[in-house]
Amino acid sequence: MASQFKIRRKVEFVETDMAGIVHFSNFFRWMEACETAFYQSLGLPLISFNPGKVVGWPRVNVSCEYRAPFRYGDTVEVRLLVKEVRTRAVVYVFQFRKVVRGRPEAMVSARGEITAVCVKNDPESGQMISAPIPQTVRAKIKVAAEKSRAR
Amino acid sequence: MASQFKIRRKVEFVETDMAGIVHFSNFFRWMEACETAFYQSLGLPLISFNPGKVVGWPRVNVSCEYRAPFRYGDTVEVRLLVKEVRTRAVVYVFQFRKVVRGRPEAMVSARGEITAVCVKNDPESGQMISAPIPQTVRAKIKVAAEKSRAR
Amino acid sequence: MASQFKIRRKVEFVETDMAGIVHFSNFFRWMEACETAFYQSLGLPLISFNPGKVVGWPRVNVSCEYRAPFRYGDTVEVRLLVKEVRTRAVVYVFQFRKVVRGRPEAMVSARGEITAVCVKNDPESGQMISAPIPQTVRAKIKVAAEKSRAR
Amino acid sequence: MASQFKIRRKVEFVETDMAGIVHFSNFFRWMEACETAFYQSLGLPLISFNPGKVVGWPRVNVSCEYRAPFRYGDTVEVRLLVKEVRTRAVVYVFQFRKVVRGRPEAMVSARGEITAVCVKNDPESGQMISAPIPQTVRAKIKVAAEKSRAR
Repeated sequence: MASQFKIRRKVEFVETDMAGIVHFSNFFRWMEACETAFYQSLGLPLISFNPGKVVGWPRVNVSCEYRAPFRYGDTVEVRLLVKEVRTRAVVYVFQFRKVVRGRPEAMVSARGEITAVCVKNDPESGQMISAPIPQTVRAKIKVAAEKSRAR
Repeated sequence: MASQFKIRRKVEFVETDMAGIVHFSNFFRWMEACETAFYQSLGLPLISFNPGKVVGWPRVNVSCEYRAPFRYGDTVEVRLLVKEVRTRAVVYVFQFRKVVRGRPEAMVSARGEITAVCVKNDPESGQMISAPIPQTVRAKIKVAAEKSRAR
Repeated sequence: MASQFKIRRKVEFVETDMAGIVHFSNFFRWMEACETAFYQSLGLPLISFNPGKVVGWPRVNVSCEYRAPFRYGDTVEVRLLVKEVRTRAVVYVFQFRKVVRGRPEAMVSARGEITAVCVKNDPESGQMISAPIPQTVRAKIKVAAEKSRAR
Repeated sequence: MASQFKIRRKVEFVETDMAGIVHFSNFFRWMEACETAFYQSLGLPLISFNPGKVVGWPRVNVSCEYRAPFRYGDTVEVRLLVKEVRTRAVVYVFQFRKVVRGRPEAMVSARGEITAVCVKNDPESGQMISAPIPQTVRAKIKVAAEKSRAR
């Protein structure tokens, strides 16, 4: 189960900037890729266009702390932890570690956080409105969260 | 009128890569920004979601030749020329020139091309299908093309 | 002076995602573009490769709160405020407002923050090391900060 | 050996645009990721900062034809073929195929091409100058090209 909360990525050339390191904005792209993989591990779609259903998880708050840079060719482990499951939102924490000789370093090179709210399409207005997280989705995320804390 | 076919952009930090120059993929983002500005100069939307109307111009063919790199802080002129107006497609050429002391250099640093097809939403299938360019759109693009050739 | 702390950007097609709104990661690209323009307004380079000089401002902490989305074609005002000038770091706040009929709305659609540390190249190790902000740079940023608070 | 010329990628949310498909500029990012993996399979660095050595492969010409779009969650196979090895340049062709139930479709959804020139750092001028492809690099690429044609 644990493996479903982690992804590995290799730093790509296009992700670097003229300072020779991964541009700070790309860490948010990686968090989202990890979140997608997490959802997939639970058998949940990150976004769904079925009418009246959960259609997405827009972000209301994101942040990232950078302690050590990543460079072209580095392999990075991104680890997702469920920090909090609210009625209409989930808070994720992400830890970024450099992988050296196949293993993630102890040191966390960067730490991110995303608060995503559950929204559905309102058939009347045609707008996206926030909605309570459906019970089945909540249950799956909570189980994952407990397993993750138990480790 | 001529000014509506050109845009200027300043190279941003995030657009550079570890080689210290603008990553080659970003030239396509700039071509699209120029195409958007061109459409706007003609009073046309680049994309429209009105039912049964033109909904977009997906690309079927794009290319770019690179002769000289751009660096962080450079100002670049992107110039759009209409190369060909077909029944269902338009071919644009883009010239990239570095701006020095307020003026574009004679030398073209890069040259791009985009072939975009006109598509509309098919109400029956719900799919996007290619469509003849509407007469009003064609007329506006052709006038712009002739003015551009006449210069 | 005030105008030097604000930039306007038009949302580009490539900046949207399948939800039809600007992808949340792009707000950080815009903050950096605004920071570059602010530096330029002070006659300072955001990055410099002169030996022994300030070489850059890597980020140690960034965040963004999202209250309302931006869509393709929207014009957005990004406003930079200097929140704090520390010995080795500067904290910026960014406010994003939609521009309607030429004027920014009262409502702030998003609010970002960047903490950037001053680094220079260490001639001995060849590494980037944090450094006190040079006096001339500090003075210019402080003056800008006071003017911004006085408004 | 054949497997070293192919990579698979899952379409990410950030790679889509408001039309609901992968933005055309991202295909170039994927080509470069495939090229990096190819180089790695040959034990060659795509970029190297050793003085006097090959330092990179800037692009002089790139193109892409789009026949069918990719959507969020699609798995895509990118296949690299060496089209031509010149004295100072290599021409690659890339085929993009959607992977369905673990297998790439017969249909090629997109076809790209990159011409990359070998450059090295000129110690005298400090500039990047084009250079003949080193013999060892040429040999490895040629062997890979022949194996790829033989299949």
